[in-house]
Amino acid sequence: MSDATSLKIAYIGGGSRQWARAFMADLALASHLTGELVLHDLNRATARKNTHVGADLFSRPESVANWRVTAEPHLTTALHRADVVMLSIEPGPVTMRYADLGIPQRHGILQPVGDTVEPGGLMRALRVIPTYVEFARAIAEHCLRAWVIHYTNPMTLCTAALHVEFSGIKVLGCCHEVFGTQRFLADLVAKSHQIPATPREEIDLDIAGINHFTWATRAGWRGQDLFPLIDTLIGRPRAFANASRRSRANQAAGRWFAHSSLVALDLFRRYSALRAAGDRHLVEFLPEYSTDTATLHRWGIIATPYRWRLQHRAGPDETLPTLRKRPLKPSGEEGVRMLEALFGHGDLRSSINLSNRGQMPGLPTGAVVETMACFSSGALTPQVPQALPSAALNRVRHISCVQTLVLEAALQQDLSAVLVDPLCHGSVDRLHKMFRHMIKHCHNHLRGWNAPSIPEFR
Amino acid sequence: MSDATSLKIAYIGGGSRQWARAFMADLALASHLTGELVLHDLNRATARKNTHVGADLFSRPESVANWRVTAEPHLTTALHRADVVMLSIEPGPVTMRYADLGIPQRHGILQPVGDTVEPGGLMRALRVIPTYVEFARAIAEHCLRAWVIHYTNPMTLCTAALHVEFSGIKVLGCCHEVFGTQRFLADLVAKSHQIPATPREEIDLDIAGINHFTWATRAGWRGQDLFPLIDTLIGRPRAFANASRRSRANQAAGRWFAHSSLVALDLFRRYSALRAAGDRHLVEFLPEYSTDTATLHRWGIIATPYRWRLQHRAGPDETLPTLRKRPLKPSGEEGVRMLEALFGHGDLRSSINLSNRGQMPGLPTGAVVETMACFSSGALTPQVPQALPSAALNRVRHISCVQTLVLEAALQQDLSAVLVDPLCHGSVDRLHKMFRHMIKHCHNHLRGWNAPSIPEFR
Amino acid sequence: MSDATSLKIAYIGGGSRQWARAFMADLALASHLTGELVLHDLNRATARKNTHVGADLFSRPESVANWRVTAEPHLTTALHRADVVMLSIEPGPVTMRYADLGIPQRHGILQPVGDTVEPGGLMRALRVIPTYVEFARAIAEHCLRAWVIHYTNPMTLCTAALHVEFSGIKVLGCCHEVFGTQRFLADLVAKSHQIPATPREEIDLDIAGINHFTWATRAGWRGQDLFPLIDTLIGRPRAFANASRRSRANQAAGRWFAHSSLVALDLFRRYSALRAAGDRHLVEFLPEYSTDTATLHRWGIIATPYRWRLQHRAGPDETLPTLRKRPLKPSGEEGVRMLEALFGHGDLRSSINLSNRGQMPGLPTGAVVETMACFSSGALTPQVPQALPSAALNRVRHISCVQTLVLEAALQQDLSAVLVDPLCHGSVDRLHKMFRHMIKHCHNHLRGWNAPSIPEFR
Amino acid sequence: MSDATSLKIAYIGGGSRQWARAFMADLALASHLTGELVLHDLNRATARKNTHVGADLFSRPESVANWRVTAEPHLTTALHRADVVMLSIEPGPVTMRYADLGIPQRHGILQPVGDTVEPGGLMRALRVIPTYVEFARAIAEHCLRAWVIHYTNPMTLCTAALHVEFSGIKVLGCCHEVFGTQRFLADLVAKSHQIPATPREEIDLDIAGINHFTWATRAGWRGQDLFPLIDTLIGRPRAFANASRRSRANQAAGRWFAHSSLVALDLFRRYSALRAAGDRHLVEFLPEYSTDTATLHRWGIIATPYRWRLQHRAGPDETLPTLRKRPLKPSGEEGVRMLEALFGHGDLRSSINLSNRGQMPGLPTGAVVETMACFSSGALTPQVPQALPSAALNRVRHISCVQTLVLEAALQQDLSAVLVDPLCHGSVDRLHKMFRHMIKHCHNHLRGWNAPSIPEFR
Repeated sequence: MSDATSLKIAYIGGGSRQWARAFMADLALASHLTGELVLHDLNRATARKNTHVGADLFSRPESVANWRVTAEPHLTTALHRADVVMLSIEPGPVTMRYADLGIPQRHGILQPVGDTVEPGGLMRALRVIPTYVEFARAIAEHCLRAWVIHYTNPMTLCTAALHVEFSGIKVLGCCHEVFGTQRFLADLVAKSHQIPATPREEIDLDIAGINHFTWATRAGWRGQDLFPLIDTLIGRPRAFANASRRSRANQAAGRWFAHSSLVALDLFRRYSALRAAGDRHLVEFLPEYSTDTATLHRWGIIATPYRWRLQHRAGPDETLPTLRKRPLKPSGEEGVRMLEALFGHGDLRSSINLSNRGQMPGLPTGAVVETMACFSSGALTPQVPQALPSAALNRVRHISCVQTLVLEAALQQDLSAVLVDPLCHGSVDRLHKMFRHMIKHCHNHLRGWNAPSIPEFR
Repeated sequence: MSDATSLKIAYIGGGSRQWARAFMADLALASHLTGELVLHDLNRATARKNTHVGADLFSRPESVANWRVTAEPHLTTALHRADVVMLSIEPGPVTMRYADLGIPQRHGILQPVGDTVEPGGLMRALRVIPTYVEFARAIAEHCLRAWVIHYTNPMTLCTAALHVEFSGIKVLGCCHEVFGTQRFLADLVAKSHQIPATPREEIDLDIAGINHFTWATRAGWRGQDLFPLIDTLIGRPRAFANASRRSRANQAAGRWFAHSSLVALDLFRRYSALRAAGDRHLVEFLPEYSTDTATLHRWGIIATPYRWRLQHRAGPDETLPTLRKRPLKPSGEEGVRMLEALFGHGDLRSSINLSNRGQMPGLPTGAVVETMACFSSGALTPQVPQALPSAALNRVRHISCVQTLVLEAALQQDLSAVLVDPLCHGSVDRLHKMFRHMIKHCHNHLRGWNAPSIPEFR
Repeated sequence: MSDATSLKIAYIGGGSRQWARAFMADLALASHLTGELVLHDLNRATARKNTHVGADLFSRPESVANWRVTAEPHLTTALHRADVVMLSIEPGPVTMRYADLGIPQRHGILQPVGDTVEPGGLMRALRVIPTYVEFARAIAEHCLRAWVIHYTNPMTLCTAALHVEFSGIKVLGCCHEVFGTQRFLADLVAKSHQIPATPREEIDLDIAGINHFTWATRAGWRGQDLFPLIDTLIGRPRAFANASRRSRANQAAGRWFAHSSLVALDLFRRYSALRAAGDRHLVEFLPEYSTDTATLHRWGIIATPYRWRLQHRAGPDETLPTLRKRPLKPSGEEGVRMLEALFGHGDLRSSINLSNRGQMPGLPTGAVVETMACFSSGALTPQVPQALPSAALNRVRHISCVQTLVLEAALQQDLSAVLVDPLCHGSVDRLHKMFRHMIKHCHNHLRGWNAPSIPEFR
Repeated sequence: MSDATSLKIAYIGGGSRQWARAFMADLALASHLTGELVLHDLNRATARKNTHVGADLFSRPESVANWRVTAEPHLTTALHRADVVMLSIEPGPVTMRYADLGIPQRHGILQPVGDTVEPGGLMRALRVIPTYVEFARAIAEHCLRAWVIHYTNPMTLCTAALHVEFSGIKVLGCCHEVFGTQRFLADLVAKSHQIPATPREEIDLDIAGINHFTWATRAGWRGQDLFPLIDTLIGRPRAFANASRRSRANQAAGRWFAHSSLVALDLFRRYSALRAAGDRHLVEFLPEYSTDTATLHRWGIIATPYRWRLQHRAGPDETLPTLRKRPLKPSGEEGVRMLEALFGHGDLRSSINLSNRGQMPGLPTGAVVETMACFSSGALTPQVPQALPSAALNRVRHISCVQTLVLEAALQQDLSAVLVDPLCHGSVDRLHKMFRHMIKHCHNHLRGWNAPSIPEFR
């Protein structure tokens, strides 16, 4: 461990049960990094508790790293001279999600996830953007040269919000949806070659698009082009057979997140590119698969109801003694591997959300895009994928621009150009009514927001 | 008339009752041009009849021009060494419009006009594009340097089709929708200043967009900015009140084309730009105003039923003696004024559809756009308008790209990327079913088209 | 005069003998405008004197307009709520031009004019840019909606400097070089058709480029393409014969500004576009014609020596009685005609320098370019010319980018990237030496400039 | 070797002493590839000889690969169904280089290398482009899906020539100049950290530009940014001291290729980016360092005289017995490592010349650029570098466009727009004279070229 790089990492949202603990576990298993980890959270108690969780993890025999973990109630103190900033927060209490999911549902808009686009994504964005702009100001003042890794949805808009005032902040938005596509292809490889499971990392992808609406324009494995395997899949008889029966069975069994990749296959048929996010995310960008519940089921997708989300939110946290009994194991996320590569310890290629500077031809410079990038030796270098076919590019570009408009709308608190979202099934009047309802519900969590007058035509 | 410019004009679709006769009337009233007018039509009899109509017009005492009018059954002979080509044709018999309008209507897709985008525009495009590509070949061979003025819908795609193989052909696509917006503003000026009617030509517009989805980004009259007048309009109480009662009354009275510019005003509120095509065209690009009949009526629009169109198609043509009694008067179209300016007789500014070479920032070079242009001294010079606000630009760009994809689909006879049009309210399966039906209906008029297999998922 | 538009015009540099008086004469001959003209000048006496000159002009019997002319020593008072700002100033005393012209001459760099690019243009830019940035601040504060018309060289950089902080300022940079090209073509028309002189306004041009390095990509007259006439010119035997004898004769006779348009013709041969600025300006962008005095003469150009400029600077001004005897006549400039059109009185097409927003494909948005524009009804609408051939575009783009770099260098007072100008014939060390000398000479007139250390390699 | 990939490789220029033999040596040392290597050369004897050289290499005990090596006199047979095409040819006999180097030298144009730009590069391009266009046709017909790796200068233009008719050909242009910059930095690292030599592969670069005028915009080593080390270098006293004495000594000693990286350092000072090609190549793009011999020496560069090149061209080839005694060792080139990665055996990052598809913002799509790229699993993925500062980008873009113009000029055999190269020190007349001389000298090797009339002004 003697030549490990010593860092200060500030973790905003450091009291989280899932992300912060997973990150500390990964740190414990990474021998090239060491230093100080400062946990900051609006909920001070959870941050303090996580210092104990961390102390325990780094003292385990399997741990190969040593970090000093502290809790810090002041954001600016936490950030001061940090080398790395981790960001994972939840915008408002879970009851806010009623506005995102429950109200649209009552107006006939079915969103399986509801955290990216459509009404749910928009409301979430309105709540979180001001917070992210403030984070950016604090980072610019206290640690402008830090790498900032964040995990918050809506990913594209949070990444963009960090750049509104300070384009120099080095932001990386991380999402694991692309891993799912690698696994989908790894399974296909295994089946096709009748070999045991292939690790997802062996699947080499070109990635083009924006978060949750991103595409693989090339897929390779040990020199083999994998797209012909998908051509075979979609050429089978009944490849696109109605999945309603299976989907309704999943719903009855509470398998809310199951899907059959049917939408993925149909998009491949239509656009000759492989979507690189799960079907449940995808259909939120593609109204032709989500006109109504029957259509969703036909394509194998369940619109998770808001009520379920409310019931299944996190219960009481586990106690420290229980947590101490949990095994120390890697999380599957790549944040720590990215840091190792950025600080000179090995190379990594991974998908990432960041500002376009050429890697995504067809989208404007500065738009937040998802691409493959090389992490090595102090730098993050995006890769230019095989071109996304125009029909798919057109849909991505359209949404990307709407995202930019939402950012402006949130900053200027003028929603007139974004309330009627072409993704939604609904007339102008109906969408106005729905949004009036949604905004009323979230009013207390729309920071500095003077209830915008959504027109009520009489 | 001594220094009039002598030209050969070839008129394709020269047997038409409306366009060809209006054009000859305008020629008769234009003193700076003379020469030979060659009428070509698949229906030879109508072309021959129009030579007599023309001979009569040019012999009227009010006529200030003299043209030799002939009918020519061979396309290439008609075009040979022409200085000007006029193009106005109807793609297929009127019963084809059942595919464009009637079938979609049965699937719940309401298209007031149905000749530009959505299912109706797509089918029409599939029928007409191969014909236009052939016209282009003949023009390139026989009169590459001619000015080609055309009036056929879908305007954007017909203009583009002429450039598929020969980008050097000098095509001008003419549409009078912008004139309507000038008249709308001229009325506003007259009311606001309490003066008598203002000629539409005095309204000075910046135009940005694509045909039937085009926008005025600036409007001036004698140095006055007219947008504040519209701000006043939309600020009135009940500016956006439900127009259903009036619209249903219009429908009952057979005023099929009436509308209240309510969509125009709502778009101005949302996007800070004034649409420059009638509401009936607009809503075909904007599903949020056309989800169902009630919504259309609420915004003051009637979805003209296919049956009406079929019944009201042209009856028997008037006889020559009757036609000879009709007064000779200007048509209100600007084709002949354009030709005067292009051949050195005065200047003209008018809106026109042509390839983008910079006048429409935000759309790719080569995309067909609608803009203002100066016609003078042998040249057509497009003007760069005030920028279209991004939210409106995003919707225009999206449709413009879809149009390009439709052109490619028609040329390659592969519809997989365009059948599911985001403008349509409908699921993938439903749209497939509808298009199978539509294509079956038009099969005989899809030239060189091997019934594309639209997937029927089982 | 009853429906004349009433305006406040602020004239910065209002004490000038040439520009301000010419402007007042044009105003006196324009019946559609009236109001208040406020003259501001660092030299208060000359501004005051010009109020008397103005009063006299507007009282002449030929005058059709009435303006109240005052002098105002405070810039901000002059600008306050102005509708129009005129700007024509000289950056520093004429002795500063020794730095621009004399010193480079001693280092072998021959600049016929020396106010645009090369060392002379650069030095002049460094002196004038800070002043223009201050003007912009005052305009933004006191009359942001005014039209700002300016005449100062370097034209491109002064125009750009006004936009550095406030891109909304409506700037028009006026230069009459294009008129010269229109006259050149008008002469050609007259000779070719053996008719009397044609007015330059009848020559219809497409203009593409940047000031003093701008090109006509199309030229028409009454429907006739004029480029074939130039093809004929350059095809004559001895069209490119050595002009040294004539040029030396011009020099001996003191005809310093004479030239033979030989460079224009050679560029037409090379690039198939017609330069639209005089040869003397052109060669400053094209070192291949100005390697040495002999080469300049061979192409018919005299490098006006600095000494001559110094000797021939303006002598004492004429007295008021003398000025009162001068006839009132139009200046040939178009500023007043532009204002008439902008305020609703007729249309005008003229060439103008302004920010690129699409009219000059190949140059970035925001770069200052020279194009034809329509002036009408409160708006200025640039026109998209026929494309500039790539070889010429490449040279224009290169210089345009250098101009942008000079602007940045001036604002940041870091010259390292711009001192070695590819336009100059000279090695790195020699150019450093020359610039050290030049900057030393101008030191007192480089506002807020801390003698930048130009490296002196030892 | 059992899972080695089996390939057919066609080697055009397969009789070459240097490139073909080095390639075979690298193949012999690469265990993952096997198959058939077909050598094609206009000089059939040398190709046949190289089959023996190859047979010997693959039979060495150190060889870990087995290839069948044959000679094939017919180009199309050699290419038929090849998986890989290697291209390294010399355009014309060495006496042609008199035109490239000797004649310009007599006109005062000093080119240290003369194979890329300036008169030498242009003449070489005119000779080689038609040949490359023919290669492309043969490849498109016989092995369109092959990877084509080539080593011929002018690199940018040869790469572009292969794409003129078939943009789908997968071309990689290889040049090792970037390796030199990695070595320069590796030395700096070693000195700075007082450690032994660092392998060049550990230096991680972002590359932006075009071949021989390419730049590193970032340099890292184990997480350390290396640019501050260069800042230190250029801050030393006498960092830019006159190198004439050393350079003349090098010349006297026949060290023709020695240089001091002085130009590299001065460019870093001016443009804040590190050139990634040797000074001798660089100054051919930068006339400010090569005005005359004294200036070249001052910057440490010798203009290798043509006479030396002629004298030192290859003598008689070594005999087979001698060659058999040479040790088998890696060449230092990366062609074989690229092939291994492309066919699924490990990853590689290397610099490469290929069509821009987004990796070089600021240059048009399709322009040939030099960038870093990942080679892995059947794909070549370019990386987007840190942005090249605008002043450097402007110079690169200018040359890149000139290269495109030269390609068009060669194809259309119209040199009017490219003969007067802004890189050359010379007047129009002088450059014309020089080129008339050069073209006359090469006349027999300008395929299909009808002595273009370069104007001789009288």
